[in-house]
Amino acid sequence: MSALAPIRKPVRPLGSAFRQGVRERLRHSAASRGLDGVLLLSPANVLYACGFNFSVNERPIGLYVPVEGESKLFVPLLELENAEPVLGVELGIYEEFPGLVHPVVWMVCQSGSRRLAIDILDARQLGPLNTLVDEVLLEDLAAPLRFVKTPEELELTRIAASYADLCLTRLQTEGGTIISAGGSELDLLADCTGFALAALKRDYGAAFAGTKLGITASVHSGPRAALPHGATSARRPQPGETLISGVGASLGGYHAESGVTLILGEVSPEQRRVMQAMERCNDAAVAALKPGARCQDVNEAALDALKSADLGDAIRHRIGHGMGLEGHEAPWLAPGDTTTVAPNMVFSNEPGVYRPGRDGFRTINTMLVGAQGVEIPSQFLAHTPIDQRVIAL
Amino acid sequence: MSALAPIRKPVRPLGSAFRQGVRERLRHSAASRGLDGVLLLSPANVLYACGFNFSVNERPIGLYVPVEGESKLFVPLLELENAEPVLGVELGIYEEFPGLVHPVVWMVCQSGSRRLAIDILDARQLGPLNTLVDEVLLEDLAAPLRFVKTPEELELTRIAASYADLCLTRLQTEGGTIISAGGSELDLLADCTGFALAALKRDYGAAFAGTKLGITASVHSGPRAALPHGATSARRPQPGETLISGVGASLGGYHAESGVTLILGEVSPEQRRVMQAMERCNDAAVAALKPGARCQDVNEAALDALKSADLGDAIRHRIGHGMGLEGHEAPWLAPGDTTTVAPNMVFSNEPGVYRPGRDGFRTINTMLVGAQGVEIPSQFLAHTPIDQRVIAL
Repeated sequence: MSALAPIRKPVRPLGSAFRQGVRERLRHSAASRGLDGVLLLSPANVLYACGFNFSVNERPIGLYVPVEGESKLFVPLLELENAEPVLGVELGIYEEFPGLVHPVVWMVCQSGSRRLAIDILDARQLGPLNTLVDEVLLEDLAAPLRFVKTPEELELTRIAASYADLCLTRLQTEGGTIISAGGSELDLLADCTGFALAALKRDYGAAFAGTKLGITASVHSGPRAALPHGATSARRPQPGETLISGVGASLGGYHAESGVTLILGEVSPEQRRVMQAMERCNDAAVAALKPGARCQDVNEAALDALKSADLGDAIRHRIGHGMGLEGHEAPWLAPGDTTTVAPNMVFSNEPGVYRPGRDGFRTINTMLVGAQGVEIPSQFLAHTPIDQRVIAL
Repeated sequence: MSALAPIRKPVRPLGSAFRQGVRERLRHSAASRGLDGVLLLSPANVLYACGFNFSVNERPIGLYVPVEGESKLFVPLLELENAEPVLGVELGIYEEFPGLVHPVVWMVCQSGSRRLAIDILDARQLGPLNTLVDEVLLEDLAAPLRFVKTPEELELTRIAASYADLCLTRLQTEGGTIISAGGSELDLLADCTGFALAALKRDYGAAFAGTKLGITASVHSGPRAALPHGATSARRPQPGETLISGVGASLGGYHAESGVTLILGEVSPEQRRVMQAMERCNDAAVAALKPGARCQDVNEAALDALKSADLGDAIRHRIGHGMGLEGHEAPWLAPGDTTTVAPNMVFSNEPGVYRPGRDGFRTINTMLVGAQGVEIPSQFLAHTPIDQRVIAL
């Protein structure tokens, strides 16, 4: 059994100096493209650039960052009091959705911009906007900034990873007892996520009030483990089966993952063979993830390890995704992503083997790209060699 | 105390005949516009038209419904086995996101369509699509169908409403005990949602496996009740305060709401005055919600009742929203929505009064538009007169 403990440090949520730095970089990015400013409509981008954490619904919320002058945060009247504490922005308030004018069109009018970049836009608004301004650049200028994390963002990621590990440790420690008492996947899930969430709240709940802090996880066993997107069910895991658990933990909005495949009882030779191939796949991703590499090539190098083990037919997804303020975010370690890997990017590393009607496996690590090599803040897999990845029944 | 009980009926999830009917109406809609077909990319629209219920992430899933020929469901390889059971569609599988070609562009190529409607589209894809086909109509042809519910959809909505009521009944019954024992808003929330969800699963979990079934709720008290989007917190409600709870329940994907403002202890004269004004606001919405009325006029008629009670400054949002496969969906009882009210539409009715630094109130009913009048399947408010809306401490 691993001796993992959650990381407890006197960290705080990212403050207004961080947000100001983000807006400064956005200004430079807009200026270098000859624009007047940037309108951010993606909730994660708004949070990134001004710290406003809101519940998403049909009412758009936007942040306009001009090359010169003060940034404007546009919110519906409903969010007035929630938005007032945001530092470094002027507020613009619209009454309600849908309104006589679409809120996004209204925001662009209010911005006074003639040439602006918009990160994400409903195509139906493009026509009206093109009649209002000289140029709408459909490009997410915040994305390349978000790709590369600052030391504070990496610190939150590391801590989050330790609570994802904690959830897995609890699953493995209590799993046998819960299953022996007749427990299902849902019972296992409720126990381990409840335990990890309580610890996360105990340790960081007060300091991080009002920020995103949480544990999400899945537990699938037997035939359902063979589905990459199988839902956790009221099924009771059976001896000899694989049980996949993937855990995401968030602290101050920053997401990290840890995941394992546990065997109910003893590891069979075929299960061991697959798990060893997945470990080679994991290691190939780590080896390929070097500054200067292209994201799609990291994916290919990793998946080649599964193909070499004659498991090519069992591949259902890419090796990994970026993460940060969103659980899944660009860049993608996947076909078609030609982004160049850079220091301080964060990716998941999730070899998966899915053989419908037979079995399924997935492990997950979080990888931080360093100049000297990859740092892996999720430690459950490293602390738990393949033959110890069991739930004793 | 109310004598509400959840509705228990031998209903089943909507079947393939329902989905076939939806696709048939989509075909007619596309044909009448001279199109070859409709590509649905909104997850709720895909679910509506073929029954495929999936977890949403960055990998687009689309359903192409042609005027002639078989519908095609486009999914990433990850969802292959989950999509195979969907009836009445051919599958089209793409490898991974982002891929060498954007999946939406690939779907349009695979559809073979020259003229098509797309319900919702990232503006960045519009350029590539316009070079591929003769016409892209940016219109959600499924929306007007979804506005008007069938008898089966209404039945699921009614049942869902009864579990939202159950959650409120539990909150009122157990609230005093929980608060007296030192409990917080979060404790209240966990108790009432846990209770209602367990009942919903007990009664419908087996028959509705694989469909969306759930309870979501909020509990805010005191100063936080004055924020329309206040988050449930570890705060302990205090005597004399208002406590707002809004509950959404889903059965087979269909959403209904019920919500109340409870007073901790005894109702003060000013609290009674506000609650009476909100009741008049609720009643004005019900009276205005007639087939032939315009949605925005229903909103105005309702909110006038708050303004007449000198509560105009305390309005933070419209009177209501449509609901169905999404918790909030068009049409909106709000400024700017000129949709004509028709029989079998479903709306929330949520008068809200928010006085930051002082207090806040909201009630919620679900309204089904009938030819002869409005049916209100949420019954907590009707069963609980204003002076009984208390949690005894």
